[in-house]
Amino acid sequence: MVKIITIGEDILGANDARARANKARLDASGIFTVNIMSSPGAGKTSLIMGTIKALRNKVGIAVIEGDVASSVDADKIAAIGIPVVQINTAGGCHLDANMVEKALDALPLEGIDLLFIENVGNLICPNAFALGEDQRVMISSLPEGDDKPYKYPAMFADTDVVLLNKTDLQPYLDFDPAAFRKVVTGLNPDVIIFPLSCKTGEGLPDWFAWLESAVRGKKKGGHGKNPGH
Amino acid sequence: MVKIITIGEDILGANDARARANKARLDASGIFTVNIMSSPGAGKTSLIMGTIKALRNKVGIAVIEGDVASSVDADKIAAIGIPVVQINTAGGCHLDANMVEKALDALPLEGIDLLFIENVGNLICPNAFALGEDQRVMISSLPEGDDKPYKYPAMFADTDVVLLNKTDLQPYLDFDPAAFRKVVTGLNPDVIIFPLSCKTGEGLPDWFAWLESAVRGKKKGGHGKNPGH
Repeated sequence: MVKIITIGEDILGANDARARANKARLDASGIFTVNIMSSPGAGKTSLIMGTIKALRNKVGIAVIEGDVASSVDADKIAAIGIPVVQINTAGGCHLDANMVEKALDALPLEGIDLLFIENVGNLICPNAFALGEDQRVMISSLPEGDDKPYKYPAMFADTDVVLLNKTDLQPYLDFDPAAFRKVVTGLNPDVIIFPLSCKTGEGLPDWFAWLESAVRGKKKGGHGKNPGH
Repeated sequence: MVKIITIGEDILGANDARARANKARLDASGIFTVNIMSSPGAGKTSLIMGTIKALRNKVGIAVIEGDVASSVDADKIAAIGIPVVQINTAGGCHLDANMVEKALDALPLEGIDLLFIENVGNLICPNAFALGEDQRVMISSLPEGDDKPYKYPAMFADTDVVLLNKTDLQPYLDFDPAAFRKVVTGLNPDVIIFPLSCKTGEGLPDWFAWLESAVRGKKKGGHGKNPGH
């Protein structure tokens, strides 16, 4: 059974304060938290499912799923025995810290080292709303085109990591990885970019290694790489 | 030179009235107007460019381009000699009728039979804002996955036409066209679906024929297929 939280009211003004409170609560439990953002269909759920499969025997994992409607993604995650809470935003185009606070109330934080928050599929609004995460991870996929950083610059400027997904489709697309990287690093010089394919597994080990290291760093008493978020 | 309009203030309450006024203005000029909506990177600009190439010798075409930032798409359209106005929403996640009204002021309506309005790349908000269009055309692309109608049902329920783009990638994806069609027609029994590839041209002639027929129908004094929008 997936727990479903439907949000009717959103207090926008208090978002940053609530995000800091969420972060303090997650810090107290030593939980490394990742806010995953992307366009619809870029591969957020596939990435989370693949990462769970690779790391679940090493670290305790839980997931908060954000969607406009439905619980199809949360159902997939619940089916493999991972604690998951679904947030339905009832038309809202991003998660906010208030929604995540309610989700944390519904999650067993005991034994969790790594929390994925899958944001609503959207390249416009989610970056403006801190949730209490340590790191922001944006997925951009090759079929979307190498011009997306020009068109949605705030999302690319505001993330810590970019996962460039669906590299298996490179032979069939006019996607220029060097042009993409140049614009992204121009917007965001400190960004980390991992090219990968959730379908073939190419590139995933580098992401897993980076993530596992970050989780262990936080367990040792760190506060994640971006406590300011 | 591309004209750029940056929208600072948006009067939401008056949207429907303004959309009706835009529609009346376009009706008076016999201009068939299409509101094109999709996820980022689904192929809105490629579809518009391909359709211009196919139909420009038969019908007068103009374009209104909506983006959060940049004028890269409008630049492409201006470069092939088609009248175009860029609207930058300054972070707003959809176009509205007020923005389109200002764009119409900046367009030469004389000699135009077909107006494309390319909405902001987003599967959540655009369907809630009528612009004055005759028809809503949503582009969904195979790499986004066949589950998108479950996750963004309002967009699929509120459109007149779905263009299922990037069919050339079918051999490399786990996309089930029958499952997609079943959910979309369940949400929207009257929808017209055209599978096509803007890259290879497969399926485009059916879309061109449908569109040209609709444009000619409006020129003969019709009011488009959905005057209620």
